[in-house]
Amino acid sequence: MKIAIPLYDRFTALDAVGPYEVLQRLPGAEIAWLAHEPGPVGTDTGKLRLYADAAFEDVPDPEVVMVPGGTGTDAVLDDERLVGWIRRAHETSEWTTSVCTGSLLLGAAGVLEGLDATSHWLDLHELEGYGACPTDRRVVEQGKVITAAGVSSGIDMGLVLAAKIAGPEVAQAIQLGIEYDPQPPFDAGSTEKAPPEIVELVRNVAAART
Amino acid sequence: MKIAIPLYDRFTALDAVGPYEVLQRLPGAEIAWLAHEPGPVGTDTGKLRLYADAAFEDVPDPEVVMVPGGTGTDAVLDDERLVGWIRRAHETSEWTTSVCTGSLLLGAAGVLEGLDATSHWLDLHELEGYGACPTDRRVVEQGKVITAAGVSSGIDMGLVLAAKIAGPEVAQAIQLGIEYDPQPPFDAGSTEKAPPEIVELVRNVAAART
Repeated sequence: MKIAIPLYDRFTALDAVGPYEVLQRLPGAEIAWLAHEPGPVGTDTGKLRLYADAAFEDVPDPEVVMVPGGTGTDAVLDDERLVGWIRRAHETSEWTTSVCTGSLLLGAAGVLEGLDATSHWLDLHELEGYGACPTDRRVVEQGKVITAAGVSSGIDMGLVLAAKIAGPEVAQAIQLGIEYDPQPPFDAGSTEKAPPEIVELVRNVAAART
Repeated sequence: MKIAIPLYDRFTALDAVGPYEVLQRLPGAEIAWLAHEPGPVGTDTGKLRLYADAAFEDVPDPEVVMVPGGTGTDAVLDDERLVGWIRRAHETSEWTTSVCTGSLLLGAAGVLEGLDATSHWLDLHELEGYGACPTDRRVVEQGKVITAAGVSSGIDMGLVLAAKIAGPEVAQAIQLGIEYDPQPPFDAGSTEKAPPEIVELVRNVAAART
């Protein structure tokens, strides 16, 4: 099963690596890391580069499309090479998925028209511009389209997808294999749970960045 | 604050990228991805390469050492370039940390002598060989040494460490920024929680691999 993960300048590393770490463990998984050109692609802070093995066009027909988000998403929403690749790959994919602002790229490709979808909580409202209904669940399933919330949610989405592809036993074996028994030291992972001043802080940092 | 992450052939991607995604968001964080030589380093399945920016010796004095695990750990336990670098960096570090079988490398460097420590559940017993006391908690703190359990536990460890370095407000802001509000579709992330037949399956797959 061919699983394609398209990268672009300033994607967020964990958006891509979270679901990758789950999905690469599926029996028969072939992972294709794609970009505009093969070679290193820089993440959102420039502090890490992942290596793309091929150009988008080299893998036109993956069974699974998994689009990560990042601070660079806005800059590629009009990029026809990337967005057009997503649109065409979606025509024949078995699953079209995203993490974080990767859903905006699905939206730009016309994939989310009339569907419930999610994104990073700071960008959720932007989905309306693509005819989608913003939904603040962590993993949103709509037929073959699955969108996940911010950054770390891709691990949960990966497990949901692994169960659909290979059954719940394999998904549980993968969960145990990556010892995914989360125990965060705080309970501040959503706007409902975090103290209001923390939500405000993150909003301000994000606003200052843009 | 200089945070060094040493890579080696067949490390596990999420071991490194989980804590990276947390720690890189600390104010003033400088991440150094190290390897035997600068350039792409292959992960455990060869399906992803991360880019190392420098050789181990180029960054002798990081404030934070963060050692990932992987199926390639066993092959570098006698590698004096890597293990010696860990030993020397630990002499001046503020924090020396690991995820998964990265703790075996800390052990080989003599860092864990007489300390409680953890690792991936499949490899936990190996810590005894390094004078450590195997402890099946997810994140084990012993002074400036923090070890974390398998693969995904590095995210939790990263947040624990972020709170120590920059305070609980910053750690919570990072948690909200990466929307870490875990909702795995199954509760199979530890040997106590997974069905016995799943534990057996994962043991057999691991045994077949080695």
